[in-house]
Amino acid sequence: MEFDLIARIRQRVATRDDVVLGIGDDAALLQPPPGMQLAVSMDTLNAGVHFPSATTPADIGWKALAVNLSDLAAMGAQPAWCTLSLSLPEADAGFVDGFLDGFLALSAQHGVALVGGDTTRGPLSVCVAVHGFVAAGAALRRDGARSGDDVWVTGSLGDAAAALAAMTAGAVSDRAMRARLDRPTPRIEAGRALAGIAHACIDVSDGLLADLGHVCSASGVGARIELAALPASPALARFAAPVRWPWQAGGGDDYELCFTAPQSAREAVLRVLATASTPVSRIGAITDGQGVIALDPEGQPWRGTRAGYTHFA
Amino acid sequence: MEFDLIARIRQRVATRDDVVLGIGDDAALLQPPPGMQLAVSMDTLNAGVHFPSATTPADIGWKALAVNLSDLAAMGAQPAWCTLSLSLPEADAGFVDGFLDGFLALSAQHGVALVGGDTTRGPLSVCVAVHGFVAAGAALRRDGARSGDDVWVTGSLGDAAAALAAMTAGAVSDRAMRARLDRPTPRIEAGRALAGIAHACIDVSDGLLADLGHVCSASGVGARIELAALPASPALARFAAPVRWPWQAGGGDDYELCFTAPQSAREAVLRVLATASTPVSRIGAITDGQGVIALDPEGQPWRGTRAGYTHFA
Repeated sequence: MEFDLIARIRQRVATRDDVVLGIGDDAALLQPPPGMQLAVSMDTLNAGVHFPSATTPADIGWKALAVNLSDLAAMGAQPAWCTLSLSLPEADAGFVDGFLDGFLALSAQHGVALVGGDTTRGPLSVCVAVHGFVAAGAALRRDGARSGDDVWVTGSLGDAAAALAAMTAGAVSDRAMRARLDRPTPRIEAGRALAGIAHACIDVSDGLLADLGHVCSASGVGARIELAALPASPALARFAAPVRWPWQAGGGDDYELCFTAPQSAREAVLRVLATASTPVSRIGAITDGQGVIALDPEGQPWRGTRAGYTHFA
Repeated sequence: MEFDLIARIRQRVATRDDVVLGIGDDAALLQPPPGMQLAVSMDTLNAGVHFPSATTPADIGWKALAVNLSDLAAMGAQPAWCTLSLSLPEADAGFVDGFLDGFLALSAQHGVALVGGDTTRGPLSVCVAVHGFVAAGAALRRDGARSGDDVWVTGSLGDAAAALAAMTAGAVSDRAMRARLDRPTPRIEAGRALAGIAHACIDVSDGLLADLGHVCSASGVGARIELAALPASPALARFAAPVRWPWQAGGGDDYELCFTAPQSAREAVLRVLATASTPVSRIGAITDGQGVIALDPEGQPWRGTRAGYTHFA
């Protein structure tokens, strides 16, 4: 049956000139561009852990690729190829068709070719590996933040966490916020535009404070965040500031980029992200020391957040 | 907790000069060698499906990497990097330590660097992606078999299936055969030695007849196999020929290479595989037509095999 499912996938995938041999052999054969470095990331989504069990196959397909492309975005890399390992309780052609609707819609947006992987029997789980290109020395790493840098974030924060909170409470979540949870937008153009400008970058998957904390540990610095500066979508802005802070500062799954850049680059940041059609907000600063402090509008340290999503919590 | 497990993994992995940035950022940064093609494969092992639930963590770690390296072997590629996505029911440091014992023992044998991936909560499952290098045009593909080619197989066939059959029947399996099931040997050196000599190649994971069938479909040819020519280990040779044939012809999990080469290359095949310290047997021929026929010692078509392992069977 695996071959039926693989044939089903194979007949729908797009290719690229640098794919020498795609789905159907023991391995894919790919031709990397001369002189470029390869950025590789791999993430698994498990049912009931990384997406609610009621998520549609198309949304699962979209999200499985999106969270991986978001990792490439956070490196400033240009996506090229991906592989997919799909575990299903039974050979379910309808599920695969729906899954591909979402997966291939997003891969087409970024010109990513699906070149291999496998389908196996097991509890519903999706593992995706993505490959992108970045010029030597241009990648956005976690370890480049310097004291005095501004801290920025793209788009808006908290929608996905608010949607999940509503679902968990049995309420109907706002449609726009739910779309952020189910169909996150990897900030590929923004990441590429920031290469050479930002000092450090990470995608917000575990929660802003947790993810910025990873940047600070890797860079040996601290950070100070102004809660009042955290961007909210129109849907989330209907919640009062203190109510939405935990979602904005502690919620994960937004897949925005949080990055640091020198103050001298403020105009450049605004200019390149305007070109990339990506909203951006300046939310704080990198400091000496260690740890991330979130300040309320009175300048008092805020202790109201949870620590961010941990994969084994 | 993910970060504890990742730190545990990170402190034990080896690196390579072409790994610009390994575990710990949003993506790994890798420097492919100029002019070479990249061979990429990804396979998932699920508990109870791809390995018996009683398999030790170290054997799971070994096998998860071995089945992927076997795919690179079947392409004639030189392994370089891998990523690992490990799903565990709970954060279990002891399991991770044992898993790494097996995984890293095999990666060290082949100079493969573990450069990224993730650890997540979920039913026990291991997804590995491997990356290797192969010169342009030198890869061993499935679609190059030609009528008149010899069919060859490395090593011996059937041990893994016989061991699994014994376990399933509640019997104690022979130790050497059980080792083939739990710690398969990817035929990396053999695959590389055959690049430029063999016309087509595949690794025997689903069963000889099934896998040779994939080569035949991809190449638009048929094949004829002599059951009496199938190589048996000393342990398996204790079973009479008709008893062991189903394991040798239909069993999977041996991870030997089955390849085709022109008759004019017989001496070259024997010479390069002797240099690679890899036993090899000539077991049949590629024919016009389609499908794989197995002949018994009387020259009669044999119908005693199962069709090979199918992933959703």
